[in-house]
Amino acid sequence: MNGLYHLGERSAREIDALVARALELRSGAAPRRFDGKALGLLFFNPSLRTQASFQRAAGKLGLDLVQLQGGAGGVWGIECEDGAVMDGANAEHVREAAPVLGRFVDVLCIRAFAGIKSLESDLRDPLLNGFRRFAGVPVVNMESALWHPCQALADWTTLEQYEIPQRAKFVLTWAWHPKPLPQAVPNSTLTMAAQRGMEVVLLRPRGYDLHPTVIENARSLAARSGGSLTITDDRASALAGASAVYAKSWASLDTWGDLEAESRQRAPLRDWCVSAEWMRQTAHARFLHCLPVRRNVVVRDEVLDGPWSVVVDQAENRLHAQTALLETVFTALERTPRVRSQARPSLEIQP
Amino acid sequence: MNGLYHLGERSAREIDALVARALELRSGAAPRRFDGKALGLLFFNPSLRTQASFQRAAGKLGLDLVQLQGGAGGVWGIECEDGAVMDGANAEHVREAAPVLGRFVDVLCIRAFAGIKSLESDLRDPLLNGFRRFAGVPVVNMESALWHPCQALADWTTLEQYEIPQRAKFVLTWAWHPKPLPQAVPNSTLTMAAQRGMEVVLLRPRGYDLHPTVIENARSLAARSGGSLTITDDRASALAGASAVYAKSWASLDTWGDLEAESRQRAPLRDWCVSAEWMRQTAHARFLHCLPVRRNVVVRDEVLDGPWSVVVDQAENRLHAQTALLETVFTALERTPRVRSQARPSLEIQP
Amino acid sequence: MNGLYHLGERSAREIDALVARALELRSGAAPRRFDGKALGLLFFNPSLRTQASFQRAAGKLGLDLVQLQGGAGGVWGIECEDGAVMDGANAEHVREAAPVLGRFVDVLCIRAFAGIKSLESDLRDPLLNGFRRFAGVPVVNMESALWHPCQALADWTTLEQYEIPQRAKFVLTWAWHPKPLPQAVPNSTLTMAAQRGMEVVLLRPRGYDLHPTVIENARSLAARSGGSLTITDDRASALAGASAVYAKSWASLDTWGDLEAESRQRAPLRDWCVSAEWMRQTAHARFLHCLPVRRNVVVRDEVLDGPWSVVVDQAENRLHAQTALLETVFTALERTPRVRSQARPSLEIQP
Repeated sequence: MNGLYHLGERSAREIDALVARALELRSGAAPRRFDGKALGLLFFNPSLRTQASFQRAAGKLGLDLVQLQGGAGGVWGIECEDGAVMDGANAEHVREAAPVLGRFVDVLCIRAFAGIKSLESDLRDPLLNGFRRFAGVPVVNMESALWHPCQALADWTTLEQYEIPQRAKFVLTWAWHPKPLPQAVPNSTLTMAAQRGMEVVLLRPRGYDLHPTVIENARSLAARSGGSLTITDDRASALAGASAVYAKSWASLDTWGDLEAESRQRAPLRDWCVSAEWMRQTAHARFLHCLPVRRNVVVRDEVLDGPWSVVVDQAENRLHAQTALLETVFTALERTPRVRSQARPSLEIQP
Repeated sequence: MNGLYHLGERSAREIDALVARALELRSGAAPRRFDGKALGLLFFNPSLRTQASFQRAAGKLGLDLVQLQGGAGGVWGIECEDGAVMDGANAEHVREAAPVLGRFVDVLCIRAFAGIKSLESDLRDPLLNGFRRFAGVPVVNMESALWHPCQALADWTTLEQYEIPQRAKFVLTWAWHPKPLPQAVPNSTLTMAAQRGMEVVLLRPRGYDLHPTVIENARSLAARSGGSLTITDDRASALAGASAVYAKSWASLDTWGDLEAESRQRAPLRDWCVSAEWMRQTAHARFLHCLPVRRNVVVRDEVLDGPWSVVVDQAENRLHAQTALLETVFTALERTPRVRSQARPSLEIQP
Repeated sequence: MNGLYHLGERSAREIDALVARALELRSGAAPRRFDGKALGLLFFNPSLRTQASFQRAAGKLGLDLVQLQGGAGGVWGIECEDGAVMDGANAEHVREAAPVLGRFVDVLCIRAFAGIKSLESDLRDPLLNGFRRFAGVPVVNMESALWHPCQALADWTTLEQYEIPQRAKFVLTWAWHPKPLPQAVPNSTLTMAAQRGMEVVLLRPRGYDLHPTVIENARSLAARSGGSLTITDDRASALAGASAVYAKSWASLDTWGDLEAESRQRAPLRDWCVSAEWMRQTAHARFLHCLPVRRNVVVRDEVLDGPWSVVVDQAENRLHAQTALLETVFTALERTPRVRSQARPSLEIQP
């Protein structure tokens, strides 16, 4: 396995193996050790679970850890545009940053959220794709503008842990939030549930659709796996019979990058907050959220502190899923060792 | 030993054992190793000694390290109020942050200073108590709003290293500083010296008392250990016969949270700066400070660079005291292994 | 070897041995391991290569790592002036910070750029020299106000890797940049090439001389090694016959600290950007840069993506050169073990 950008590009067989291994690790199995190998973590955004779980996974796997942060005091601002005349804020191009880090570590993990300024730019997922293009080593996506595959892998593991049937009803619901948030998590959640063959319902108010390409891709994965995808704003019909309710807030594509318009659009939607009353309409559904979650805004205390919530197990599964993933990636590297870059002292270099 | 919040809650026997072990480690004894176990460090405030010494202690003990920072680019802002409607700045509740981190590490260390905005809030020590309440693993206080027990343990170790008798006179003196500072260190210093059975003198100008509960608690510890506690603003009588002078600045409880009033109150107190003249009035006293210290403001160069100062040994003892502490905490964990969180797939979850 | 401040203070024999070892490590030789020893990294400025390569080197050498950052949320602001009355922004003096860190680690690495406010201060290199003076352990310079010796060692390694003859022509050229930058890299590059015995040409517009002491020192090193140093603003004559072109921007000493004057002075110099046309005038020269580099500002894409560029190998050599350096420093420490600081309980301390 050559890194991980997006869970949707992985086969059911690969995912089944990773989830099974994650559950073994959760039950106390010892991970392989790769002493002398190194993992790089590069964060351009805040993180609690992702930082902690990747650091811990590196320890469990015996990996040397290289950890870098963007922002003041961290790495230099990274430019991703080809041909850019770099006389602005960014001091380094991904064409240098990526291959250089690729010389220092064996696998590189990147977190780079959507900026929610330009939809066109966010849809190109420039930092993740820049690093994938130029790093020369496997790249693992720790949440990009478009996808959060490690979360999706942990979520799938959680559904297995709680023995939620493959054909069960899975509701992904939009929730109100004071800020416009990226769509990486809902994109990945929807795709994951469709890949797993579930009866997927996307419950959202008008104006909060996910990108048509994501929807289309999820539909085609659902078709292959025996699942389905319905999109609705009818809460009652969505919740009836559900085995899992996954809440998440995200910004509207209609007003992407326009804070004021987005704010106006979501103002009347504060009742999109998951409550016990929502959960009682389901079939004893589990409540999932990727965390961090704003209590009594996205979901009420009564749900998080009640019998429905599995969010802490879900977060713990980040560790096990990522340990399983890295184990696979580093094992694959052993079979196809990196070709050492060679000096070319005899090369004729006149173009 | 189940973590450490406040040294005052530990028995003399426990503290003696920790200090003895710290001195052994200082002399070159090899610490135990706990390979495969993990230590989490979470800092919400600046740190030099604490970060460096805990990182090094983790290395010496063979622990995997998970390290996180608050603030921009670090973890999300953490809410601690029960029932909060989280539509403000904080993106995550301690009810999620704590148990999630508790799934990734075996022992969790937290630094969270007093905000010096609301006395009522600071007295509840919300972040430390939030993590202690919800983490599910032992929590070590790396300085909270109220206490700095690892500093106190290092200070006690330093008093032993320098063979300062148990019954000797110990002066904790307030000092001028350009900013109002928290009381965690003076609270812990006073408590530590009282617990050790010393003749404790709290030397401070009027308006700079410590909290009555801290004083009362120190008096009761002194009574038990054969020590005493005197509070005074008479410098000459305080210094006469002293074996140790510990300087520290702290904000006034009278003006807590009111920067301007505090600033007016302390304006005439710039002569509260420990000088050679102060030290010459003592009985060859050692000079202690927790560091960082503002030279020629809190204490003059002549004292720090003179024969009195033991501040660098005192800082070094942070490493040894914390290594001894963590060794004890991880050894205790072996005897009472953590109960693994279990999936509850068969649970009836309708409330 | 007692740390490394400046490559110019090292003998040719020492440097040859380090470069030879770096090339062995590059070819896959296993570094020695120093289990139980610790390396400290303290960064006051941004870093990508330096952080990543030192972290990785620590892993390869089996060292415990202690890593600290300056700035918000990191270590306290550090004062370096002797006798300072510290009632301003800095909370800690290097007279405490340095020896304390020296108690926690065996070797301390510091990054502290020139502030480019006061030339007089920058020329004293206050943070690096403060740490060297007070740490009590070997200090490695990870780029200071004046020098970047690890970069110079990696550059020398790169020249050997690409078999660029010792007597070949080496051009260090100034380049335009939107901001005034420190001179640590050009100082170190010029010195390194002179030490290696090359035909060194410093190509820069008027007003962009390096400091006379640096030039004088480089001339004297060149004299000893059989090399030479020419300073010119004639691009054609500089490039003719060159085997290596090293580009770097730096601020003018004439306007140091005066942003507006510096900006006016460099405004007409935007054509100082290395292009294919420059490289075609050379003798198949290699293109070097310390990175990060601003594309199409300092150097055109066509050069970095063309056959001339060795910048990624050059960056990779940071890892190998530093691993070789630390191996040497830690090996030397084994022969002269640190004298443990001793308590002095019997000392008469009345001055």
